[in-house]
Amino acid sequence: MSMNEKTLSTQKIFEGRVISVQVDDVELPNGKQSKRELVKHPGAVAIIPITSEGKIVMVKQFRKPLEKEIIEIPAGKLEEGELPEVTARRELEEETGYTTNKLEYIQSFYTSPGFADEILYVYMTNELKAMTEKASLDEDEFVELMEVKLEEAEQLIKEEKIHDAKTVFAVMYLKLKGM
Amino acid sequence: MSMNEKTLSTQKIFEGRVISVQVDDVELPNGKQSKRELVKHPGAVAIIPITSEGKIVMVKQFRKPLEKEIIEIPAGKLEEGELPEVTARRELEEETGYTTNKLEYIQSFYTSPGFADEILYVYMTNELKAMTEKASLDEDEFVELMEVKLEEAEQLIKEEKIHDAKTVFAVMYLKLKGM
Repeated sequence: MSMNEKTLSTQKIFEGRVISVQVDDVELPNGKQSKRELVKHPGAVAIIPITSEGKIVMVKQFRKPLEKEIIEIPAGKLEEGELPEVTARRELEEETGYTTNKLEYIQSFYTSPGFADEILYVYMTNELKAMTEKASLDEDEFVELMEVKLEEAEQLIKEEKIHDAKTVFAVMYLKLKGM
Repeated sequence: MSMNEKTLSTQKIFEGRVISVQVDDVELPNGKQSKRELVKHPGAVAIIPITSEGKIVMVKQFRKPLEKEIIEIPAGKLEEGELPEVTARRELEEETGYTTNKLEYIQSFYTSPGFADEILYVYMTNELKAMTEKASLDEDEFVELMEVKLEEAEQLIKEEKIHDAKTVFAVMYLKLKGM
């Protein structure tokens, strides 16, 4: 049996700078109708930057949706038409002041498939070069740089100071790699 | 320096069955102003159910935001005032036909802290009991049950049939536990 839901109509609710929101009327596999609330997102990248001392470069930032600061690996949204690897290098430069010639693609995943189409592409680099001129952050972005050991990152997860999917992923990934 | 953003005003955009959307005017740490687009979500649970044969119970389902079927561990939204552990048992029963007396809390994480406040509480159980009477799914929910070995799950990740944060987390968690 196909479980596909056929779109009967789409009601546009909101067109923002980052997200847009719509409500779709759908026909369910059993012929009945329902509504789906959907958030459209351009997609994002995250980078696991490892220093020559084996520390993970992270950023502490205030997240308005959570009304608190959390510690995350560097990440950012795709600009229209931008390749994820280009976004990854740009965000690395803007948020950390490091750049790299070697970005390794690890994998992608959807963050919230129940209501949003956001996909996250995760990259890693252990060849960081300090930039002589620091790239500037977006004008509404404020971050504090940190370099943490893997054991410290695990402790930060326990304390829920690291508390988001991509950074938890990064820490588990490094552990599985035997870093 | 505090990186907090002070809310100056909130514009309600949408109040749905699952999500609500608002745009906040904020004062940035440097005194300038900006806008934040925020999705409010009730929070959710996910369960890692392990059979007596050591297989992971998963569900294949059509996800409208992605316009495709993906394979996930069972999950669902918190009802208002519901404790996550109660949601976890209910979703396990509804989606898999198994129940349990032993749910182990693993950890929580935010799925998309850049634009949404959704938090996901993850539980595990390796004491599954088949229910004599199957609990019914929500009337707009259609899932196909699967039981997969850990190696199969890793292959499904490579093929991007498993492609969401919580299920990738579950597979890495089990691998780290040496399952």
